[in-house]
Amino acid sequence: MSAQGEFRFRLADRLDGVDSSPVRDLLDAVSKEGVISFAGGVPDPAYFEVEDIRAAYDWVFENHAERALQYASSEGEFELREQAAFRLERYMETTPEQIQVTTGSQEGLFVVAQALVNPGDVVLVERPTYLAAVQAFELNGARLIGVPTDENGVIPHELEKLIAEHSPKFVYLIPSFQNPSGVCMSVERRAAVADVLLRTGTALVEDDPYGELCFEGEPFPPIASHPGMSAQTILLNSVSKIIAPGVRVGWMRSEGPIQFTLTVAKQAIGLQSPVTDQLAVARYLATADVEAHLDKVRPVYAQRAKAMYRSLQRVLPDGAEVTQPDGGMFLWARLGHGIDTARLLEIALDEGVAFVPGASFFAHDPDRSTMRLSFVTHSPEVIDEGLDRLGRALAKY
Amino acid sequence: MSAQGEFRFRLADRLDGVDSSPVRDLLDAVSKEGVISFAGGVPDPAYFEVEDIRAAYDWVFENHAERALQYASSEGEFELREQAAFRLERYMETTPEQIQVTTGSQEGLFVVAQALVNPGDVVLVERPTYLAAVQAFELNGARLIGVPTDENGVIPHELEKLIAEHSPKFVYLIPSFQNPSGVCMSVERRAAVADVLLRTGTALVEDDPYGELCFEGEPFPPIASHPGMSAQTILLNSVSKIIAPGVRVGWMRSEGPIQFTLTVAKQAIGLQSPVTDQLAVARYLATADVEAHLDKVRPVYAQRAKAMYRSLQRVLPDGAEVTQPDGGMFLWARLGHGIDTARLLEIALDEGVAFVPGASFFAHDPDRSTMRLSFVTHSPEVIDEGLDRLGRALAKY
Repeated sequence: MSAQGEFRFRLADRLDGVDSSPVRDLLDAVSKEGVISFAGGVPDPAYFEVEDIRAAYDWVFENHAERALQYASSEGEFELREQAAFRLERYMETTPEQIQVTTGSQEGLFVVAQALVNPGDVVLVERPTYLAAVQAFELNGARLIGVPTDENGVIPHELEKLIAEHSPKFVYLIPSFQNPSGVCMSVERRAAVADVLLRTGTALVEDDPYGELCFEGEPFPPIASHPGMSAQTILLNSVSKIIAPGVRVGWMRSEGPIQFTLTVAKQAIGLQSPVTDQLAVARYLATADVEAHLDKVRPVYAQRAKAMYRSLQRVLPDGAEVTQPDGGMFLWARLGHGIDTARLLEIALDEGVAFVPGASFFAHDPDRSTMRLSFVTHSPEVIDEGLDRLGRALAKY
Repeated sequence: MSAQGEFRFRLADRLDGVDSSPVRDLLDAVSKEGVISFAGGVPDPAYFEVEDIRAAYDWVFENHAERALQYASSEGEFELREQAAFRLERYMETTPEQIQVTTGSQEGLFVVAQALVNPGDVVLVERPTYLAAVQAFELNGARLIGVPTDENGVIPHELEKLIAEHSPKFVYLIPSFQNPSGVCMSVERRAAVADVLLRTGTALVEDDPYGELCFEGEPFPPIASHPGMSAQTILLNSVSKIIAPGVRVGWMRSEGPIQFTLTVAKQAIGLQSPVTDQLAVARYLATADVEAHLDKVRPVYAQRAKAMYRSLQRVLPDGAEVTQPDGGMFLWARLGHGIDTARLLEIALDEGVAFVPGASFFAHDPDRSTMRLSFVTHSPEVIDEGLDRLGRALAKY
């Protein structure tokens, strides 16, 4: 065992044999030259507010350099927690003390799982659901069960039935412009879901990275803001979609004793988030015009979503179903006809186009004829070209 | 259960009843005005190379703004992995591909624990050992057993005995200027420990944040660089002590299939580290004179360590034992006489001085008369004043 070159680490069962996430492998494949990728939820960098963000970092180094470079609290920088609370105040009373900063939303999901999940605990998720949440929950021992959804999100009576059957540790939902489906729960559906959760005393982990990317009107209030729900919800936000993902700044809101547990978990996982990025994001949120930025991005994404939907109608086989999102970053297509989109992807990559096969978004019993496509990265012209390539791949399949 | 205000989240067993780390609580206490704190390992910000670091961020925004703000790989930015490999090349062959970037060393410790520890697995640690590593390992189910140490680090035949008895998943060591003891293992001791690990085929997790803060001579090569050890070691480094902690940049070196597992764990825990900080640190390492910075800091810390050792001789009771580190950030004192340093701390805080009671640094059977003091934060004059206060607290005890 100790002879040089033959040593094998003995892995934890939770990671023994685990593959890397399909999204990650795809992002690798996608770096091949000439591939048009609809795989990642990668915002178009042309719309980053580079000068404003740079100015925020400049201001931090000009005014708080020593603090930005020093150790700090596990909860996060107060100015950032203030800004987070300020944004949530649109929907619900929130104090800075109720905010725990995370290094992006993914860390938040992992922190939640560490804090709540015992091996074997059931977590209810949407069917389909966000695949990196599946990973974070399962590595902490969760048994995921998918709740049937319609064009309005989880179906309340199905949710109630599964809660009664499994007494889940929590329900994980992405109510606004869900990843991967793009579906946005209506106000009525949110109320119905809140009612089920309240009556059954079930904890909610609500993930809301996309809510502000609504193409029309105002963002819907989170389920956490329904009367009675704030105390039984952990609500996750991120600036990845409203500022930029590379800074890795997210946060979560909770009330009561759970806050302390989340902070202890965060501390064990990563001590604290980088102060540099926290202070710069706080400065940006305090001084830049976030609404103006969103108003610039929203119509661009709306146009791209429309272009993608239209092109998909052209290239997908008869009977295929495609969602028509009113916000967010993703379209979801169900091809049917026994098509396995994982096999289709291999052909598609040869044709120079990438997407994410849908199977990994299912907690169980995957529908292998599904796929997720992001519409935010490319212009309508490139989207058209990419979907032409998808059409050629389908013809060869 | 669902009545408003009465909702209680059902916690995971791993965090149910867990307290926050004593260091964290202390850092809170320490923010009280007028307290001289030797508690945290908080570098003196007067020695941060603020202008060079700021220039590195500037350069990133000038040359790679879109990249710095975009999603990126879980392994980390290539330039940073190159710089990490370049630094390790002083001791052992290392390619950039062998480097996994982490958001500070703490995340690295958690990633390692996720990847290797099954509930109930034994991990051998130094007695005493770094308390945040204890937390990261225990939250992932590890059963920690402390290996007896002397003024040279872990005692090889004790290590071998405990390996035979427990077949540990891995051994966790901080060979250079250990936290909390300040002890640095000699070259001979490192070789003897490597011999035990090689003969028994035992994995090593080597944590080396302090190695470059040696007061004289060159840093000792890591145990990972001993012939045969590189394949069975995960070696963790951080820039917290050579640049600044607030940027949260660390990395780990490993070889073979374990690299993939570490990357998958990192991905589940936090997707990727902030690109902003990664690129800025890479730029800093590539262009700033790290050695000149260290040559500026080393004599300052050496003088402070000496001042603290001298003052401790003055104020501690007869028979107290104090380590005399040749580097790093910490002194370790054993007061004996049945003194409980947790109780002493309460009096000390009233007198206006803080340290970390030693009990939390023990995996089991704590010696409650021990304490950790950091000598890096304050000038010799402030150290003298702080230890006068400690003397008054001891008199009152």
